[in-house]
Amino acid sequence: MNYKLMLRTLGRTLQLEALCLLLPMMVSLIYREDPRPFFYTICIVGVLGSLLVRLKARPDFYSREGFAVVGLIWLVLSLFGALPFWFSDCFSSYVDCFFEIVSGFTTTGASILTAVEPLPRGILFWRSFSSWIGGMGVLIFTLAFLPKVGGRTQVLVQAEATGPVSNKLVPKTALSARILYLIYIALTVLEILALCIAGMPLYDASVTTFATVCTGGFSVMNASIASYGLPACEIIITIFMLLCSLNFAVFFLLLTGRLRQVLGSDELRFFLLSVAIASGIIFLNILPNYDSISRALLDTLFQVSSVVSTTGFSTANFALWPTLSQFILVLLMFLGGCAGSTAGGLKCSRVLLMLRCGNRSMRRLSHPRAVKVVKLDGKAVDEDTLNTVFVFFTCFFLILGGTCLIVSLDGFSLTTTCSAALACLSNTGPGLDVVGPMGNFSAFSALSKVTLSLAMLIGRLEVFPSRILLQPATWRKN
Amino acid sequence: MNYKLMLRTLGRTLQLEALCLLLPMMVSLIYREDPRPFFYTICIVGVLGSLLVRLKARPDFYSREGFAVVGLIWLVLSLFGALPFWFSDCFSSYVDCFFEIVSGFTTTGASILTAVEPLPRGILFWRSFSSWIGGMGVLIFTLAFLPKVGGRTQVLVQAEATGPVSNKLVPKTALSARILYLIYIALTVLEILALCIAGMPLYDASVTTFATVCTGGFSVMNASIASYGLPACEIIITIFMLLCSLNFAVFFLLLTGRLRQVLGSDELRFFLLSVAIASGIIFLNILPNYDSISRALLDTLFQVSSVVSTTGFSTANFALWPTLSQFILVLLMFLGGCAGSTAGGLKCSRVLLMLRCGNRSMRRLSHPRAVKVVKLDGKAVDEDTLNTVFVFFTCFFLILGGTCLIVSLDGFSLTTTCSAALACLSNTGPGLDVVGPMGNFSAFSALSKVTLSLAMLIGRLEVFPSRILLQPATWRKN
Repeated sequence: MNYKLMLRTLGRTLQLEALCLLLPMMVSLIYREDPRPFFYTICIVGVLGSLLVRLKARPDFYSREGFAVVGLIWLVLSLFGALPFWFSDCFSSYVDCFFEIVSGFTTTGASILTAVEPLPRGILFWRSFSSWIGGMGVLIFTLAFLPKVGGRTQVLVQAEATGPVSNKLVPKTALSARILYLIYIALTVLEILALCIAGMPLYDASVTTFATVCTGGFSVMNASIASYGLPACEIIITIFMLLCSLNFAVFFLLLTGRLRQVLGSDELRFFLLSVAIASGIIFLNILPNYDSISRALLDTLFQVSSVVSTTGFSTANFALWPTLSQFILVLLMFLGGCAGSTAGGLKCSRVLLMLRCGNRSMRRLSHPRAVKVVKLDGKAVDEDTLNTVFVFFTCFFLILGGTCLIVSLDGFSLTTTCSAALACLSNTGPGLDVVGPMGNFSAFSALSKVTLSLAMLIGRLEVFPSRILLQPATWRKN
Repeated sequence: MNYKLMLRTLGRTLQLEALCLLLPMMVSLIYREDPRPFFYTICIVGVLGSLLVRLKARPDFYSREGFAVVGLIWLVLSLFGALPFWFSDCFSSYVDCFFEIVSGFTTTGASILTAVEPLPRGILFWRSFSSWIGGMGVLIFTLAFLPKVGGRTQVLVQAEATGPVSNKLVPKTALSARILYLIYIALTVLEILALCIAGMPLYDASVTTFATVCTGGFSVMNASIASYGLPACEIIITIFMLLCSLNFAVFFLLLTGRLRQVLGSDELRFFLLSVAIASGIIFLNILPNYDSISRALLDTLFQVSSVVSTTGFSTANFALWPTLSQFILVLLMFLGGCAGSTAGGLKCSRVLLMLRCGNRSMRRLSHPRAVKVVKLDGKAVDEDTLNTVFVFFTCFFLILGGTCLIVSLDGFSLTTTCSAALACLSNTGPGLDVVGPMGNFSAFSALSKVTLSLAMLIGRLEVFPSRILLQPATWRKN
């Protein structure tokens, strides 16, 4: 392992975290709040980062190291990112602060706060902004704006990107990263503008947008988006949640005029079909409980988009919806968005590949000698990728089971326990029952909170970095 | 498709059903109850069976036909087996009768009866006896005692036997079937004797034994085994539930002195280890709620054995146990017993093979070129079998999801809905909440009851017969 380069990369990312913290500090100065929580953290993180980047290292990174360093960086970044919360005295323990910032960085949106509104605006801004940073990836951010990391940076992007196959937009990694971020920033600016025009104040529009485009789901209102009572904003947020569940390569292809390639994407069609079917069933299922058809339709579309994009905003308390609708929302939580998006879950392309593998195996029962390939977008998918998808599914369900086991020690109902574990591992945020859209995670024990925080990290980094980080072979000297 | 031979085989099985119905008719005569429900059914089933066996058919069966005929026979047998219930006027609809008899034949033990005790003893005897017949397999029964079916009967046994690989005890199918049934009958007689000695009346001992050795779980008492208040009986039943979750080949090997081969079984060790770990955790988890250590230990062992063997008896209301224990019981429901036993669930050997496949795939990530085989009992498992296991898992979870979707229309809680679907598909019987050990399935709609009945059949026949029965290709003329 090239420890020095790992630490150097960590240093670069910490420097970036210090820079990012300037923004919430400015917000707290504007609103005449206490800026010291941010100031202290910036000093600690900035000094540590600057010391680490002074390390001289051989500039080579291998795939295994890439995964390990990504896992490590996300963990350290969260440990330090929790400091402003801790210094602000608004949280009752450091574990709570850690849970909240991990929920931010991993764009989960689960909260241990029972009431959001009394908190200082600077702190809430950092909470939402952290999920914006995490949405597109911390390392991609670093590579895009502080590129002097050295080494084969493609492995870092591969380790952090979501989905079974990472697609580079252009041959150069740093340029790819910058294009992705430009698209991300463009979406952010567009949504802030749209929300302001629809009648939201600038501060609310900004933090809501941060939480939408990263599909995080933190809100600065106790009753989430329902508080604003602005249907226009709900429509805007629905559209942006869906947009951000798409592979960001789609926007690049659209901008470069390759519409045919976009429409040929199996994953995109699968995603849209799932959203359409789920919305159709839920709409018909909840319609009898509503007076107004348009309200039922908007609530359905908003909630389906919120769950499938793993954002976790709510306009209706779906924990009170009929069981069928709830069950479909749980299935959507498993599904998640497209690969290469900011959404979580298993990802559409993985589910699609797994279903096609199942179909191939079923055909093999009748024709054992037939050699068949599994295709995606008309191209054969190599067996190594399919193998990785299979490992991902196995690990995902084993980790889900393990998380449920530990959380069940707290003695909440099975629905609460299992939906909390799933909501964290899939980075959705709210679950059902106690952790439902109107509930929160404050009642859990410290052990459960730490376990759920780790589940969020494992979910965001899609299992592999954490697996490599935990393997003894990774740390053995050769 | 060789329709004539299929119908001929069906005829033989119907004849056997008529014979089996003589036993509950005798019971109802002994207890001076109305024997007509049985008499009418015996006439209908007997005449139909005798007509069908007169069909002349080419004696050839292929694998596909084997699966199709097994699926068909189980369905028809259940449709006719429900008639005594229907004629008895104790059930409110034919759907209820069908649910109850399917629950019997598939050894699920789920019931739509809110109170069992007021029913005639003959009817209750048929209910328990049907699960005894289903436990070892209807067709294996037919082959063992009415062997003149003709055709390659091995495919029928393969289609009905449980587990990923069917192991013949001796080269001749009919002889294998007879040995299996002799072991089964020996276990039955042993348990009846033991229960009688422990203080249970003969009638109760018989019906309880029928429900134990087939791992069915029907009881003639409302409060299941807890009603008797005989700890000795609980210990006996625990032992027999565990014994009947083992591969019946184990008994054959033991009887022929091949102890080393028994101890070398990976599946056996995996099963015993799972039971031990689950019992250990649950015991420590429920201990604080108990006054007596021995009572807690007995309840733990009884309930773990009852769930892992998919019997479904209860001495304690585990729906009131801590969440951790409930969650472990749900995991055990998924697991089930060993292949070649009367238990349901995914089966230990399948779960073990799946875990080993996962492990192999994980190693492939680091060493993509390495060719590795998955082993069971020290022997390499061929890829076709692994493929079948993979298809089984995929189908199992898809069917589970589909069943949940339909049942969720009834609007019960998610825990009720999902545990009901799992309890039926894994042939356990009781689930949690409304369908918990002290509850029943009476509140569901007719649609849900039919769906759950089909889930029980699919679970008992392990997916493949039903899949082939539903494929259009099966019914196409070549």
